[in-house]
Amino acid sequence: MTLKTEPMDRFHSIIPAGGIGSRLWPLSRAAAPKFLHDLTGSGQTLLQDTWDRLTPLSGKDRILVVTGVAHEQAVMSQMDNLTAHNLVLEPSPKDSTAAIALAAAILMRREPDVIIGSFAADHVIVETAAFLATVREAVRVAATDKIVVIGIEPSEPSVGFGYIKQGDPLQVEGAPSARQVAKFVEKPNIAKARRYVESGDYLWNAGMFIAPAKLLLDTLAKSEPELHAAILEMAEHWDTPAGPEAVNRIWPTLKKVAIDYSVAEPAAAAGLVAVVPGHFTWHDVGDFAAIAELQSQGRSGNLAVLGNAKVLADSSSGILISETDRLIALIGLEDIIVVDTPDALLVTTKEHAQRVKSLVDALRATGHSDVL
Amino acid sequence: MTLKTEPMDRFHSIIPAGGIGSRLWPLSRAAAPKFLHDLTGSGQTLLQDTWDRLTPLSGKDRILVVTGVAHEQAVMSQMDNLTAHNLVLEPSPKDSTAAIALAAAILMRREPDVIIGSFAADHVIVETAAFLATVREAVRVAATDKIVVIGIEPSEPSVGFGYIKQGDPLQVEGAPSARQVAKFVEKPNIAKARRYVESGDYLWNAGMFIAPAKLLLDTLAKSEPELHAAILEMAEHWDTPAGPEAVNRIWPTLKKVAIDYSVAEPAAAAGLVAVVPGHFTWHDVGDFAAIAELQSQGRSGNLAVLGNAKVLADSSSGILISETDRLIALIGLEDIIVVDTPDALLVTTKEHAQRVKSLVDALRATGHSDVL
Repeated sequence: MTLKTEPMDRFHSIIPAGGIGSRLWPLSRAAAPKFLHDLTGSGQTLLQDTWDRLTPLSGKDRILVVTGVAHEQAVMSQMDNLTAHNLVLEPSPKDSTAAIALAAAILMRREPDVIIGSFAADHVIVETAAFLATVREAVRVAATDKIVVIGIEPSEPSVGFGYIKQGDPLQVEGAPSARQVAKFVEKPNIAKARRYVESGDYLWNAGMFIAPAKLLLDTLAKSEPELHAAILEMAEHWDTPAGPEAVNRIWPTLKKVAIDYSVAEPAAAAGLVAVVPGHFTWHDVGDFAAIAELQSQGRSGNLAVLGNAKVLADSSSGILISETDRLIALIGLEDIIVVDTPDALLVTTKEHAQRVKSLVDALRATGHSDVL
Repeated sequence: MTLKTEPMDRFHSIIPAGGIGSRLWPLSRAAAPKFLHDLTGSGQTLLQDTWDRLTPLSGKDRILVVTGVAHEQAVMSQMDNLTAHNLVLEPSPKDSTAAIALAAAILMRREPDVIIGSFAADHVIVETAAFLATVREAVRVAATDKIVVIGIEPSEPSVGFGYIKQGDPLQVEGAPSARQVAKFVEKPNIAKARRYVESGDYLWNAGMFIAPAKLLLDTLAKSEPELHAAILEMAEHWDTPAGPEAVNRIWPTLKKVAIDYSVAEPAAAAGLVAVVPGHFTWHDVGDFAAIAELQSQGRSGNLAVLGNAKVLADSSSGILISETDRLIALIGLEDIIVVDTPDALLVTTKEHAQRVKSLVDALRATGHSDVL
């Protein structure tokens, strides 16, 4: 399969940096999505954290960022080491298959036996060493011609994630915990989620996967032949002067489909998907309640503060995120969420954090897209 | 006592416009106190509402406003009909005796048999016609040489107000409901407040009183002779070129004392105070919970909005006061209080509205006086 002896030498990282994160409005906007924000208090944005996390695996020259044209400037200004060569700009949002398959196809033309790993720009991982060890194990498994997903040991019966049902153990040298994927299951109801967690057979699907680019694209060729052909045509011209013309012509015609449907599920049905469990803390930071929990690790009842606000809090818990320098005073508020930005203010509670999305929908419907 | 036949012909209104209203921070500030704000949604400030309410009684030329020098511009810009002749500027806050007694003394020099009525600039009265009838009745009683307070029929056993214990009925023509005041009692605890309300003998002390200026000053002469002399000396020079010098010299030496202690209580002990019950709705708008209640009359569970904010509220009740044009989104908040100003934001609940004062104290203590 490969002439190189070490699978890690074939490895490139892809960071799909997309998705507005409606549940994080008014912090996350079309013009400043989730991944461009510091949601952990690390002093870096989620994108910068993701980049730093991947650098030890692939080196800074082997990380490809895929993002919307609208974010080119913001991304370039945040990433000192990112070159135009390693940046793929999507003319418009076409869902995850287009983004990841194009990146994989471009890398495969540059390096035919490339193993790609795809890691969202807006997730949080706490124990980096464990994450790196897991990815290295997954790369070994991928080198045996598998699409390898990283499954997270559930800490609770979450209904917010899809699950991976583990199958038989695989015998891969240097990857002792790798197992076959029996199937992917979509976000369950709470009863199902409890059964999944109790059984011990299920892991959270964190959307991270590692695969030979060729296997990924071959799978796509079977499930979505037109999309596959279009992707390959753009990749063929990408590093040539004809690139921009090809992209501008072809991109608008692409089918929007999530890579879960176009690649992961058909490959799992064909027995081509493995899973490596990740023993690290992972958060998709889906809403403000998640940020509050991330911030309050072991400090329940406290108020977490992100941003430079002057804060005076009296008997209040929850999270305050500020992008202004106003003085903010909170009195007697439990599990509160306050998000203070120059043109919009959100006040809600952790219990209602998921409802922010409907509010954004309402804003869109009532013509307030200037603040979205 | 008087050569004029009609007591109302002797009547002048005094509006003491002072007090920062710490419980209404960050709306009410040292630079923009409570009376300069529209807290009712009437489209006018409390001071303008007070002025308009008094005009039918005394005419616009017989209303004297007493306020701090710092508020001269704001007050003049709000009051089209206010002339310098009818404005008394306090060089510094010296409590209510200094403010009201100086105003009374100035008016008495201009018109020796004047009956003054003192009405705070920052209260809300709902039924104006009933208020006017009550004051007219009180003026008739005052003309019999009484200090007349207006007592409000309690709607609940409030611990936030002082109470007036009613004594025997008085026999004054045109003032059938006037009674002697047996005594004033300070803000009670809840058990006492309940007994007061059940007895039917007690009324809320709304701080409104009507009295011949001479009687008021004579009472002060007995209780606080030095303060009385100082007030008379300033009043003597007030309408002369020597006025400013006298005020600048004397004002800083004045004793700070509430008029309740210097005049009302000693006069009551001497049997000189009468009460006329006011059958109108009165609010002192002491905190944001009071504003919320004022706004939500009969619409419990609703969110009241004051200001020009674009608001998107989902399952929220309470009050939102905005001095910015930001979009404000509230989700799932019960009895919430949100006050949004350009440099400070307050979020609390109706239950905790009284605690805003301690927060302001904390801000002062921590050197944040720029936002106070």
